[in-house]
Amino acid sequence: MNVFAGFQPKLSEGSKQARLVFLGNIQPDLQRGVREQIPNADLVALDTMNLWIETTRDSLQKTIEVVDLVIINDAEARQLADEPNLIKAARKVLSWGPRGLIVKRGEYGAAMFTKKEYFAIPAYPLEAVFDPTGAGDTFAGGLMGYLASQEKIDEAAMRRAMIFGSVMASFNVEEFGTERVQRLTYDEINQRFREFKRFTHFEEIPFERAVKAVQ
Amino acid sequence: MNVFAGFQPKLSEGSKQARLVFLGNIQPDLQRGVREQIPNADLVALDTMNLWIETTRDSLQKTIEVVDLVIINDAEARQLADEPNLIKAARKVLSWGPRGLIVKRGEYGAAMFTKKEYFAIPAYPLEAVFDPTGAGDTFAGGLMGYLASQEKIDEAAMRRAMIFGSVMASFNVEEFGTERVQRLTYDEINQRFREFKRFTHFEEIPFERAVKAVQ
Repeated sequence: MNVFAGFQPKLSEGSKQARLVFLGNIQPDLQRGVREQIPNADLVALDTMNLWIETTRDSLQKTIEVVDLVIINDAEARQLADEPNLIKAARKVLSWGPRGLIVKRGEYGAAMFTKKEYFAIPAYPLEAVFDPTGAGDTFAGGLMGYLASQEKIDEAAMRRAMIFGSVMASFNVEEFGTERVQRLTYDEINQRFREFKRFTHFEEIPFERAVKAVQ
Repeated sequence: MNVFAGFQPKLSEGSKQARLVFLGNIQPDLQRGVREQIPNADLVALDTMNLWIETTRDSLQKTIEVVDLVIINDAEARQLADEPNLIKAARKVLSWGPRGLIVKRGEYGAAMFTKKEYFAIPAYPLEAVFDPTGAGDTFAGGLMGYLASQEKIDEAAMRRAMIFGSVMASFNVEEFGTERVQRLTYDEINQRFREFKRFTHFEEIPFERAVKAVQ
């Protein structure tokens, strides 16, 4: 028995005009049904999980074929592509159609694969993780929210959106539920964004020049 | 019976003048014995492993107290500090004396902790890992080699050294043994260094400004 029998999401006229769509983690036929109601969206992202990969793989792949961005975790990406090497797994998922694959790696950060680019960031370093529930969802929500604030969704905006999502997730896990996120200020967000820049920055100096400097 | 009984490394006069020292993964008393023979080194780094953490913890901690940099993997860092949270683990190890702790994370990259700074990088994305043997050692060797080429060993040089070590490790795992590294050119190294910059770069734009741009 399918407990979702009869559940067929019907979007309001307003929702059908959405510029950005995030297909939350539900049965992939239903996700595709929603996606088809918003044919003109600029960007449609999708989340999924091991249950759908195992039980509805064909439908899931069909749904992935009609979205722009897949946002899943490390283990799901490998399982989805049936490929232990993440770079190969990403290439395979991208070959199905999406423009991008974002892989969430928990305390190791996140990576984004597109046909031409690769981008990877660490997680915000936290000494106290009070409640990790919803960290991945907060990341995805923050990412989509950031994109919604942008006029142009290009590689640079996607990268900033990943940082923004990571910042939001870092706040979310510091307290129970949505408590911390609810009282967040722009200043706090921007401060962690700047910290991300600080702890990923390095100078690019060709090695030969460095050697010559001491010779 | 200690199979190392009687093994007491004695450095040549030349070695005692070394500016940079890497104490390879041997019994910590022996590491300390070597370290004491080079009191004027600019930077002494140390590698260790679970065996010494489990069997000679006190001696290992005494050795860590007299080095500048600890280079170990993720699991070892948590085990060494007896602390599952890596950020807390790093703080504890640094409290023993070293100026820096570099944590190797395999396919997830590496992170460096100092008293004031945090730096994290992803691994170079490889589709084919032919032989991962020695990846961590190549990382450490590349890192120390890079530092040896630098006049000044500051935070910026340490960060570049981590990229350099990661580049070297990425080449090392592409073939058996040292085959690939032996025929490496500066151009190949610099190309991957530049790629590291490309796949970690993002613009820092305060969020309010981004929002105002579309309002």
